[in-house]
Amino acid sequence: KLVVADKKGNWEFQPIGRVMWDALSVDNDGLYDGTGIGDNEGRGTELRRARLGFQGSIYDWSYKFEADFAGGDASIKDAYVGYGNNLSDNIKWGVKLGQSHIAFGYNTKASSKYMSFIDRPFYADSALSPARESGAVFQINDKDYRWLLATSFTSGAIDAGETDVDDADTWAIRGSFVPFMQDSKHLLQIGAGYLNRGNGDGTFRYRQRAVSHITSERPIDTSVAGYDGSTAFTADVLGIYGPFHALAEYVDYSAESNVNSDQDFTGYSVEAGYFLTGESYKWKKGYNSGVSPKSPWGAWQLVARFENIETEGVIGGSVQTEDEADKFTFGINYIPRKNLRLMLNYDKITDLTVNGVDTDAEPSALKFRAQAFW
Amino acid sequence: KLVVADKKGNWEFQPIGRVMWDALSVDNDGLYDGTGIGDNEGRGTELRRARLGFQGSIYDWSYKFEADFAGGDASIKDAYVGYGNNLSDNIKWGVKLGQSHIAFGYNTKASSKYMSFIDRPFYADSALSPARESGAVFQINDKDYRWLLATSFTSGAIDAGETDVDDADTWAIRGSFVPFMQDSKHLLQIGAGYLNRGNGDGTFRYRQRAVSHITSERPIDTSVAGYDGSTAFTADVLGIYGPFHALAEYVDYSAESNVNSDQDFTGYSVEAGYFLTGESYKWKKGYNSGVSPKSPWGAWQLVARFENIETEGVIGGSVQTEDEADKFTFGINYIPRKNLRLMLNYDKITDLTVNGVDTDAEPSALKFRAQAFW
Amino acid sequence: KLVVADKKGNWEFQPIGRVMWDALSVDNDGLYDGTGIGDNEGRGTELRRARLGFQGSIYDWSYKFEADFAGGDASIKDAYVGYGNNLSDNIKWGVKLGQSHIAFGYNTKASSKYMSFIDRPFYADSALSPARESGAVFQINDKDYRWLLATSFTSGAIDAGETDVDDADTWAIRGSFVPFMQDSKHLLQIGAGYLNRGNGDGTFRYRQRAVSHITSERPIDTSVAGYDGSTAFTADVLGIYGPFHALAEYVDYSAESNVNSDQDFTGYSVEAGYFLTGESYKWKKGYNSGVSPKSPWGAWQLVARFENIETEGVIGGSVQTEDEADKFTFGINYIPRKNLRLMLNYDKITDLTVNGVDTDAEPSALKFRAQAFW
Repeated sequence: KLVVADKKGNWEFQPIGRVMWDALSVDNDGLYDGTGIGDNEGRGTELRRARLGFQGSIYDWSYKFEADFAGGDASIKDAYVGYGNNLSDNIKWGVKLGQSHIAFGYNTKASSKYMSFIDRPFYADSALSPARESGAVFQINDKDYRWLLATSFTSGAIDAGETDVDDADTWAIRGSFVPFMQDSKHLLQIGAGYLNRGNGDGTFRYRQRAVSHITSERPIDTSVAGYDGSTAFTADVLGIYGPFHALAEYVDYSAESNVNSDQDFTGYSVEAGYFLTGESYKWKKGYNSGVSPKSPWGAWQLVARFENIETEGVIGGSVQTEDEADKFTFGINYIPRKNLRLMLNYDKITDLTVNGVDTDAEPSALKFRAQAFW
Repeated sequence: KLVVADKKGNWEFQPIGRVMWDALSVDNDGLYDGTGIGDNEGRGTELRRARLGFQGSIYDWSYKFEADFAGGDASIKDAYVGYGNNLSDNIKWGVKLGQSHIAFGYNTKASSKYMSFIDRPFYADSALSPARESGAVFQINDKDYRWLLATSFTSGAIDAGETDVDDADTWAIRGSFVPFMQDSKHLLQIGAGYLNRGNGDGTFRYRQRAVSHITSERPIDTSVAGYDGSTAFTADVLGIYGPFHALAEYVDYSAESNVNSDQDFTGYSVEAGYFLTGESYKWKKGYNSGVSPKSPWGAWQLVARFENIETEGVIGGSVQTEDEADKFTFGINYIPRKNLRLMLNYDKITDLTVNGVDTDAEPSALKFRAQAFW
Repeated sequence: KLVVADKKGNWEFQPIGRVMWDALSVDNDGLYDGTGIGDNEGRGTELRRARLGFQGSIYDWSYKFEADFAGGDASIKDAYVGYGNNLSDNIKWGVKLGQSHIAFGYNTKASSKYMSFIDRPFYADSALSPARESGAVFQINDKDYRWLLATSFTSGAIDAGETDVDDADTWAIRGSFVPFMQDSKHLLQIGAGYLNRGNGDGTFRYRQRAVSHITSERPIDTSVAGYDGSTAFTADVLGIYGPFHALAEYVDYSAESNVNSDQDFTGYSVEAGYFLTGESYKWKKGYNSGVSPKSPWGAWQLVARFENIETEGVIGGSVQTEDEADKFTFGINYIPRKNLRLMLNYDKITDLTVNGVDTDAEPSALKFRAQAFW
């Protein structure tokens, strides 16, 4: 990590990037047996993220541009110009113009550089909890981030350079506060968010892979006919107590239909982690950040997560579609130096209902990641 | 902006880039009513430019590579190795091998980082005034750029990594001189250029959007049957007088046909600007450059432009095709710090003739840009 | 070339990249006359390589990410996290996880930044001597690289972000040692490698252009029906004696078929170079590296190479397919400064057999390159 700055801190300039390489072994437990759908089981490797960019600040202004090249093209991530200032001695405010994270959810916005697990929960970074969009994001916060209030007005994610007239407008708002804080390693943070989205081009689809990003099939796959906008809310709790942390988030998403009744989605995840080597989950500005190992031998962390995703739609009292999945993940993280990370995850689906049918399949995956960022 | 250099200035190395994010509202004034052509009206956002690259110099040699990733792929911009030296105490010369701007026109070559308006004039950076091509560019100039003579031999723009056998060869030449110069803030520069282009694959097409880069339709759209090469000339005048500047350019492009008579295009633009805060249009090496605000509150500039594009072809004395557009643009530029810029433009077409028919439509757009470069 | 490091050398960070621009003139000598196959003769330019990336090290760990953008998309090159340490005072070992060069061959792994010729030999960086793949590479070596042993376990090259279940697994091993070494400018190195590859998706194809990377046709083009895995070995000798160097490599590749007999490929190249200005071929860590000119006027080198590629398959004693090519290349390299290079090559095919038929065509090309790296 290289930051070039003047002595007074009036300006900064920083090349940024990350590379994450995964090796995976996936067992579908017969999920697609007899369907002729292949390419969903076995071993593989993936360049999960490969990003290059620059960010900088000059007095009250800032800018950032980062793109992901892992897939062979340029997927635009943050691309914005920002301004920030003090409202009072204790209160700051800021605005970002361009593409950046909307003001909704914790797991979606939490940086992939510092995630406790190789993959985000089912609901995060999906149609149910959108990530980066193009527009304006405003934030006001306590200087120590004891409380934070952000709101975003956006019109979709940049695709082929732009957002279109028929991309849905989204308004989102998120607040968080820290009712208990002994120090940055002993604290409790509570957050909540609300999202309202237009109907855009009249289509809505939520879909998600089971246990690995490398497989092509997504057993959970729900579209909404006559889509007419949606509302959602989210709540999250983060607790850190020395080497131990726990994080829970709940999302409720309602996609309205002008031909059927609404399609409701609920998802939640509960995770816990423990640093064997005494470090703590790093909390910074209301989200996660990079852990610095205490010793030159690095930091070791054990993590576990349970998560659920469920959707149900009703027509005249009868079920329209029903998908559900439960998943456990266990992991070991090794952080040899602050900007490096090796991760080992075991994911296992324990319950999977597709289109109302409870399958017997319990797909699982063993996943390894080697990661560096700068 | 970060330049790493040795103390003697023998070598330099610099990461470069820019990000420009636009928010737009377009009114087509009924231009495509009843045609079933959509996606040309309404609000949208665009990542107009998002570039990453590096440039450097070592003694008399230089190199540069920059690509634009805004559209999701890598669009190659400058990619060259250069050499420069002194011919005498007052005269310098240089050559660039690779892809760089051809020696033709002012508005096309003027950097998008420092433009007075969000979009270039109709004729600039188009088939009528090509931008970067692959080949060799030679330049000789007074050490203070009081005069400059450049010529380029190129064979098309790099596409999919290369230029092909059937890309047209282009020879261009541009000269400029400064008959009046009190100081860099009070000067007059006159420029002229000539271009000769082969027939390449036998096709020629000029087309241009009306008021915004985000719309998909281009009402001005002229192809030439039996294309057999072309010649063009351009003339430009730049005057700076303290906080005031004026810039005018005229292009005359003649596309020859071996089945019809020639298709003639003429285009011109006249712009004026005034810095309310006392800065001046920055003139550097014969082109525009970055303005440094005089105060920490930034620089404010008012700008206005009128432009015209017109084409007419004649078969046996009768008109073959006729397109014409007149447009006004008014703008306010705010430059909070040297490498940041916020722009607001209002564009309005006041006359639009498509295929010989004078439409009543007067499309207009309100455009906002947030921009940073490094 | 910019390396940022702390004083003790515990960490380093470096932006990396290269740009290579070629101008070419190709004469096919009637090879495709009357076939209707065009686009294979004439002049053209090419952005041969245009790479951006970063690499760094922190204590015993390292990372690198570099992509090539010349073709308009992002072609992933090195993307790995590495670890290295000392086994004893004289012996080092290391591992790379991600995508990097497999442990096979000299010319394939030798960096394009320092090549003696504009193009690699026929067999290098092809199906016969694969370049970068995704997996793990282990190396153990003498601290001065007097001997080196590397082995790689990989599963194909990253494409669209990943390697798939049906990509072939490859195991490769390479060793080299230096029996004679007066100093780094007078030495002899001998290397050898072995490769074993699975059948993957059951297809195998080797094809190669004749004299230039810009042409679309590849006269040498051999596929194997019922492909069932392959084995290969390679041997190479590098000798440096002051300003003179010679390099030879031989590859023998056998592609097994479960319907026909095996298809055998052999290829070799012999090159020699002489620095008129007294520099030497730069040997570093068992491969080539950048030459620093002795004088500010730069280094001049003359180079020549002969190469051959040949394939023959047998069904029941009769020839299945037979392709062969002999080629000479003569070149002049000018290295004005360490990170710059101008190259001029003349390639001529002297024998060309396609599908068992000896053509009379002797394609040739004149090639120029301007190159910078950082």
